[in-house]
Amino acid sequence: MKSIFRQVALIGKYHAAVAPALAASMRAVLEDIAQFLTTQGCEVVVERDTAAVAGMSGRPTADVATIGTQCDLGLVVGGDGTMLGIGRQLARHGVPLIGINQGRLGFITDIPLDAYRTVLPPMLAGEYEEDHRTLMHARVVRDGNTVFDALAMNDVVVNRGATSGMVELKVEIDGHFVAKQRADGLIVATPTGSTAYSLSAGGPLLHPSTPGWVLVPIAPHTLSNRPIVLPDGVEIAIELVSGRDASANFDMQSLASLLHGDRITVRRSQHKVRFLHPRGWTYFDTLRKKLHWNEGNV
Amino acid sequence: MKSIFRQVALIGKYHAAVAPALAASMRAVLEDIAQFLTTQGCEVVVERDTAAVAGMSGRPTADVATIGTQCDLGLVVGGDGTMLGIGRQLARHGVPLIGINQGRLGFITDIPLDAYRTVLPPMLAGEYEEDHRTLMHARVVRDGNTVFDALAMNDVVVNRGATSGMVELKVEIDGHFVAKQRADGLIVATPTGSTAYSLSAGGPLLHPSTPGWVLVPIAPHTLSNRPIVLPDGVEIAIELVSGRDASANFDMQSLASLLHGDRITVRRSQHKVRFLHPRGWTYFDTLRKKLHWNEGNV
Amino acid sequence: MKSIFRQVALIGKYHAAVAPALAASMRAVLEDIAQFLTTQGCEVVVERDTAAVAGMSGRPTADVATIGTQCDLGLVVGGDGTMLGIGRQLARHGVPLIGINQGRLGFITDIPLDAYRTVLPPMLAGEYEEDHRTLMHARVVRDGNTVFDALAMNDVVVNRGATSGMVELKVEIDGHFVAKQRADGLIVATPTGSTAYSLSAGGPLLHPSTPGWVLVPIAPHTLSNRPIVLPDGVEIAIELVSGRDASANFDMQSLASLLHGDRITVRRSQHKVRFLHPRGWTYFDTLRKKLHWNEGNV
Amino acid sequence: MKSIFRQVALIGKYHAAVAPALAASMRAVLEDIAQFLTTQGCEVVVERDTAAVAGMSGRPTADVATIGTQCDLGLVVGGDGTMLGIGRQLARHGVPLIGINQGRLGFITDIPLDAYRTVLPPMLAGEYEEDHRTLMHARVVRDGNTVFDALAMNDVVVNRGATSGMVELKVEIDGHFVAKQRADGLIVATPTGSTAYSLSAGGPLLHPSTPGWVLVPIAPHTLSNRPIVLPDGVEIAIELVSGRDASANFDMQSLASLLHGDRITVRRSQHKVRFLHPRGWTYFDTLRKKLHWNEGNV
Repeated sequence: MKSIFRQVALIGKYHAAVAPALAASMRAVLEDIAQFLTTQGCEVVVERDTAAVAGMSGRPTADVATIGTQCDLGLVVGGDGTMLGIGRQLARHGVPLIGINQGRLGFITDIPLDAYRTVLPPMLAGEYEEDHRTLMHARVVRDGNTVFDALAMNDVVVNRGATSGMVELKVEIDGHFVAKQRADGLIVATPTGSTAYSLSAGGPLLHPSTPGWVLVPIAPHTLSNRPIVLPDGVEIAIELVSGRDASANFDMQSLASLLHGDRITVRRSQHKVRFLHPRGWTYFDTLRKKLHWNEGNV
Repeated sequence: MKSIFRQVALIGKYHAAVAPALAASMRAVLEDIAQFLTTQGCEVVVERDTAAVAGMSGRPTADVATIGTQCDLGLVVGGDGTMLGIGRQLARHGVPLIGINQGRLGFITDIPLDAYRTVLPPMLAGEYEEDHRTLMHARVVRDGNTVFDALAMNDVVVNRGATSGMVELKVEIDGHFVAKQRADGLIVATPTGSTAYSLSAGGPLLHPSTPGWVLVPIAPHTLSNRPIVLPDGVEIAIELVSGRDASANFDMQSLASLLHGDRITVRRSQHKVRFLHPRGWTYFDTLRKKLHWNEGNV
Repeated sequence: MKSIFRQVALIGKYHAAVAPALAASMRAVLEDIAQFLTTQGCEVVVERDTAAVAGMSGRPTADVATIGTQCDLGLVVGGDGTMLGIGRQLARHGVPLIGINQGRLGFITDIPLDAYRTVLPPMLAGEYEEDHRTLMHARVVRDGNTVFDALAMNDVVVNRGATSGMVELKVEIDGHFVAKQRADGLIVATPTGSTAYSLSAGGPLLHPSTPGWVLVPIAPHTLSNRPIVLPDGVEIAIELVSGRDASANFDMQSLASLLHGDRITVRRSQHKVRFLHPRGWTYFDTLRKKLHWNEGNV
Repeated sequence: MKSIFRQVALIGKYHAAVAPALAASMRAVLEDIAQFLTTQGCEVVVERDTAAVAGMSGRPTADVATIGTQCDLGLVVGGDGTMLGIGRQLARHGVPLIGINQGRLGFITDIPLDAYRTVLPPMLAGEYEEDHRTLMHARVVRDGNTVFDALAMNDVVVNRGATSGMVELKVEIDGHFVAKQRADGLIVATPTGSTAYSLSAGGPLLHPSTPGWVLVPIAPHTLSNRPIVLPDGVEIAIELVSGRDASANFDMQSLASLLHGDRITVRRSQHKVRFLHPRGWTYFDTLRKKLHWNEGNV
């Protein structure tokens, strides 16, 4: 049975140059998968930066924008970070993504590299679970002008400078005053981001299909400043009231040196990221493995 | 300007007999409010048990079922517990509720007794914020039969016996296995319940318009068993795997002596409770007051 | 090189009757160890209840009191629970204990059964780390009379009845008022107990050589009621102010149906339990294994 | 009855220049107290920087070193920060300190300004509670050399740069490996510091007479990395394994730009700070007020 996805983009760790030995290994893995996809009836295009980093030649390449308009599927080989990065860029195009992890099981790259030959064929044939993830559109607004603007799949974080004391932040939801908070910072996390930094800071897990965000203060001065879950249709505004060297971080895309009065606003993006998982996949299976539940642990 | 609510039910602490002095005071308060409502153009009926407890005579009374079918508004004078109890009963009838608190400000009874004469008139004239709260329909199923069945506005709690060790619970969502948990117990809370027991056990706050539940383990053996927020359209099933003297508590309505294999199931009720608040009310104002934010506290 | 411990007591799971197959297996294990100890120059006596449960005959037996006065070492084969139980009983005699675990690694039974032949000889020859654990002497005092009295190695817990609401507890330290707390209960834990129930309820870890106790409220109503570490020379008193069906549990030895006004008092016992570990052992190695640190976990 | 403390140093907010109006107010307050002390039989000397900041002339002044050798008591007028700063400097001289707070009640400056005329006389006459606080002596060691060295009364904090990811820290106690931790940072707090940043980060309270420190990870990646209480006689070493722009902060005295391999070591100082409190004072009274226990709060 042949793939229902005709044009498939192959995407690896495209961010940074790697050592020659690693590039060779990456190339071999990607080439294997590319050949396999061809046998499944796919036409394979390699993401341009991936090809450059891995030193792949001899296959057609395309930049992400072209992939967005021309491909039916993105196959990501890497970790959750790679998947999030490409997810943000492809969200507006609606291209679905499958994640193959090379190292440890990820929260969203859930197909082990050594299993792809058995796991992919039914998925390519249409046997998959589809999992839609919300995105945040975040801005830093200074004196009425947007000075920084990005999408985030995990979280929007406002935090203090390294050697300065707490920041004071004023939080508003849909224009309603919520609280002034003194803390190391404040996280606004999506369900996807609820298993990342937010969890370390004491936030709850949010099932991916929960239409909500969670606000999690980091080391808050007031002990009753607990995480709050909000419906994801709201607009969240966070104003820096006091604190030196504070920064805004949208999925680790940073704007440092925030000024007092700067407002970080968060809205739901109109786009969603589409992840495909093997038939029978549930989010709870991933949670159980990643959080080591049911292993007789303390 | 006259009330848009014609038939108004007056409801007080109807649960239990009270001392004569307290009954006299209750009677005086309710009588005052009843007369005031009359001046606003309302026809007042007193909830039957309330009238009995307070020793009120000379006004028409009605049981809750009758109130549900005949009244346009319920005016509750009491605390959050009274409001929750009557809310559960009136939910299926869609009768909106206004809460007047006699003691400390409640999360949902937010009009101080001494302010009702100024706060109520605009509300009765239609100037109010409407706030809908979800309800859970919970059951204990034993050998395939429902042996206990109730609505809950706050929470469904399964917990261990007082002098026995942990319970082991198996959790499923929409038929998918989530985890086996060893703990003192497990709370499933609505947004309304997220400020009650769930908060004490480490759960997050859920804004009332969040369409979700939160599962909060109580003193879990596995440290990574963190609170999980779920969309409220799911069915949650909790099975007692081991543990003596465990009980199920739906808003404190209890079934003790659970048996191994008993399943507690939770679904969203098709009904919602309608609370009315003064114009300009926001949930965050209540949170800020109740949790003592912004008071310069530690 | 021969054992510096001449009289060695062999102690197994002595609490309860077991199935014949299990008894046979227990007997075989204990007999193996007994023979091994003989080759090391020890004279072996089997704890009386252990011998009965395992169906051992042909070796001298002794009750715990006799072991306390006549033995130089106790070798415990079982889990942490068995070790704690015998530790409490032998503390006043100062008999040191070595723990061999049959199942999963314990916090205090840290020699795997399959390794005892290599691990024990140097220990018996005097090459060991000694680790002293404090004990609590706890009482329930009613109307001035002690109605329940026991030692605890892990914790003293006061908790609410299963289907009743919170208890209200008044806490005093050395006669000074600390707080009234409304909660599911309150734990007073030793360093040994800090890895048990206390940890699940949100308490910190206490290194065994910390001369302190920790008070940990269980699901406290007031969010700022955080765990408090106290020097272990103090007297802690906990009075039940309100709440039905509350109980006191000293290492799971329970007194149910506490009355209002009952006072639970906790003092450090004058005795300590002596645990011996293989040379090079540190508490941190055990923590790291039991809590799965450094395994690349979330 | 006359003061048993003959030479008394008066110490205010000596850190920074203040606005003229504030200086005038400070001057008036200090002058009042100085006159009052004189009536109690004390000879008053004003700390040199305090006198400069407040613009006081006409009274003898002394620097902190001279105060240390010549004064019998330090009277601090300010907040907890001022008290901690002067406490660190006077610890080696054993001069006791009394704290008068001008604003909100502090954890250690517990005499309200408007009550000093009634509270001080019995204290000066010898009627007081004495409360000794441990200090940490912390160092940053780079390539075997100490590059930063300070005392800390509250905490030693190693934390990540503002816009970089987690740091990885290797922790050792008395030369024994404890764990590698990935987190925003790690706090080592004294009992005094346990009510400060450590509390915000999830640490327990430590009674001041507990001879221990607490290690509290800030937003740790591994959920089982819980706070650990250690006896205060140990040496703690924290090595920066990875992470950019990390810094070490000893009571907010900072060394930025830590290098990989840098080791932060913490030992108990041989000195203690002596605080004097009014007769009948207990630490629990302060906790209860500062943490708003027993106010009917959530």
